Amino acid sequence: MGAAPNVNTNPLLDRKLINAFVDGVTRTLATMASTETTTGAPTIEKEFSTKGDVAGLIGMVAGTMKGTLTISFEKEAVFQILENMLGEKYTELNDQVADAVGELTNMIYGCAKTALNEMGYGFEMAIPTVVMGKARIKSFHTGATLVIPFTCTTGKFFIEITVQT
Amino acid sequence: MGAAPNVNTNPLLDRKLINAFVDGVTRTLATMASTETTTGAPTIEKEFSTKGDVAGLIGMVAGTMKGTLTISFEKEAVFQILENMLGEKYTELNDQVADAVGELTNMIYGCAKTALNEMGYGFEMAIPTVVMGKARIKSFHTGATLVIPFTCTTGKFFIEITVQT
Repeated sequence: MGAAPNVNTNPLLDRKLINAFVDGVTRTLATMASTETTTGAPTIEKEFSTKGDVAGLIGMVAGTMKGTLTISFEKEAVFQILENMLGEKYTELNDQVADAVGELTNMIYGCAKTALNEMGYGFEMAIPTVVMGKARIKSFHTGATLVIPFTCTTGKFFIEITVQT
Repeated sequence: MGAAPNVNTNPLLDRKLINAFVDGVTRTLATMASTETTTGAPTIEKEFSTKGDVAGLIGMVAGTMKGTLTISFEKEAVFQILENMLGEKYTELNDQVADAVGELTNMIYGCAKTALNEMGYGFEMAIPTVVMGKARIKSFHTGATLVIPFTCTTGKFFIEITVQT
């Protein structure tokens, strides 16, 4: 404990990395969607498939480190966030929801990336992909997945980070 | 026509890029899965959602260029490829199929990446993600999607490339 974990030995235990992504979520949703969120305890999962009804994915590259960021939403959570963000009620997973999830994923990643790069990381910008529907989503990596749960008043969402050096 | 299109103005019309991905598919499937494939005519789609039953995705970063590579399979096609590759019959989309699609995606991207980097591109390695099930998969980018169809004896699969500079 005590000393900050070294990003080179176990990036998933790197507090600065975790904090940057948590801040990215919290700030983006507060600023863009006036949505308050509660952050749950992160867990590290060896075998993990994304749950949730709609997910935004971004492949991350930072020097020799590579990974994926997935933000997956229960539909109740995403409907509330979008209602707060756009002032309209959403009841189905349609194109507008996919677009908004793509945009949120981009903003959350962009926010975390800016903070991390100011600390000397070299994260590159990438293109988000949105997966909507009852699918299993699985990342292929030699490590594990860091899962951070969030709640807003109507539902849950998760950020899932895999990193490999 | 005539002159080679410039990668900096429209990466999706860059023949070297297209050829590297087509070669990556053809060679990987021939070598790893003894599967012969026929390449169809590429199309450029403005609005595109991935079809198919299982797909491997890779976020691509090469200098200032970013993009996604998606390889999506009809299940009949992937079952045949896996039977050729692993000598077992597959009839359902299970964990083994997901693992194999992740591995194939990695190999196809790795093969194309090696060829492209020898030509001076700077593609970075990334982690593949596999999406299995009836989902819509949509990439968020300012450009278009290059779709290249392939057929093997039992079905179709597609590679879909989005690139943005």
